Amino acid sequence: MNSSKRDLRVCFTPALLPFHSLEGSIVVVIDIFRATSSICYGIANGARAIIPVPSVEQCAAYRGRGYLLAAERNGQKVDGFDLGNSPFSYQTEAVKGKTIVLTTTNGTKAIDQAQGAHQIIIGSFLNLSAIVDYLSEQSRDVLLLCAGWKNHFCLEDSLFAGAVVHHLRPRGAFSLDDSSRTAEDLYTLARPDMAGYLSTSSHALRLKNLNIQKDIDFCLQVDLFSQIPVFKEEKLILLT
Amino acid sequence: MNSSKRDLRVCFTPALLPFHSLEGSIVVVIDIFRATSSICYGIANGARAIIPVPSVEQCAAYRGRGYLLAAERNGQKVDGFDLGNSPFSYQTEAVKGKTIVLTTTNGTKAIDQAQGAHQIIIGSFLNLSAIVDYLSEQSRDVLLLCAGWKNHFCLEDSLFAGAVVHHLRPRGAFSLDDSSRTAEDLYTLARPDMAGYLSTSSHALRLKNLNIQKDIDFCLQVDLFSQIPVFKEEKLILLT
Repeated sequence: MNSSKRDLRVCFTPALLPFHSLEGSIVVVIDIFRATSSICYGIANGARAIIPVPSVEQCAAYRGRGYLLAAERNGQKVDGFDLGNSPFSYQTEAVKGKTIVLTTTNGTKAIDQAQGAHQIIIGSFLNLSAIVDYLSEQSRDVLLLCAGWKNHFCLEDSLFAGAVVHHLRPRGAFSLDDSSRTAEDLYTLARPDMAGYLSTSSHALRLKNLNIQKDIDFCLQVDLFSQIPVFKEEKLILLT
Repeated sequence: MNSSKRDLRVCFTPALLPFHSLEGSIVVVIDIFRATSSICYGIANGARAIIPVPSVEQCAAYRGRGYLLAAERNGQKVDGFDLGNSPFSYQTEAVKGKTIVLTTTNGTKAIDQAQGAHQIIIGSFLNLSAIVDYLSEQSRDVLLLCAGWKNHFCLEDSLFAGAVVHHLRPRGAFSLDDSSRTAEDLYTLARPDMAGYLSTSSHALRLKNLNIQKDIDFCLQVDLFSQIPVFKEEKLILLT
């Protein structure tokens, strides 16, 4: 390997993160359906900050202190919380100026596990080009971390990772691993009809049972905005 | 999910095995470059048995007791052992009637980790159709376990898993997961020129540095024979 090249790697599930070095890298956390799509949308819509916490209990501990509380488990809003994981809960009128405390099945755990990286940013199709532009401007190794589903490989997260690889690769000298090559090939295959390609994925089927097809369609929109959330001092805030 | 369907899943690296249930399943262990290709070839060439052991030390402990000792680490034969991991070491004149004790970087560890399955068999392109035929005749869930490279996702193992999915899927009622769908798509993409597709994979580059291109070419041959090794009483023997 040419050491002047930047690593452009994909980690298909958080369970594989211990086999990657995070040191000096920018990690992009990816949970397309729906945590990172909702986080990006919330920050773009003016949420002051989103505090990711690993457990429902830790989320509930913020109650009564002026925060919006958002908790999702197994695809559904947890009873008694203000918000779930649907991007439609993160519209301007609900979140502008607010700080949200958020826990989700996969996404917030992945953020937690990425600690130790040089920087953690949050990616989704909604801010794809902004992510690619930002990564292209930095001189850092890149690790695209798919949140997956309970440590299983997940198609939609891998496709987004592939989209980043596809658009970033021509813009610098990168060294790809087998995961990033595979992700890019999948993306190229799926790109002409992403929704169709994903319609039989395990997660899409899971979400279909929850009647949230409109969430899926929303999360597959590309470049709806250019804001990027960054993890700083235990909070996700707007990258400036 | 329809419970009358058999699961047809792919585990991309042994590190993800804890998230899969093995109970009642047939596990196919896959380490194309080169452990499972060599194991299949050795059994097809009349080796009486191959005893997989996790460490070089455990392999050495069999010395002087009439066994052939085979040890590979980081792609190379370990000094002082009879065989390495090259399939050309497992030809009839070397192995017929012999019992081989084998340790490799990834493959033998994957076999060890699959214990708990209903049955463990060994797959390679060299016996692809035999594997597909056998799995098709059983009424078991199937888990295709890629040995990977030091717990990383590996292209060639995933491609072989995809080949099995591709040929097995039309022959029964199977429930696929995102990994098995992805593996099949990769295989379909790579199939017209497997060697070309793999030529820039990380493992192929690693092996190229070791000057073993002829091993790679050998391991990508399809259906050279129909024997299948099965793990029984701590040994790999011919499935009959």
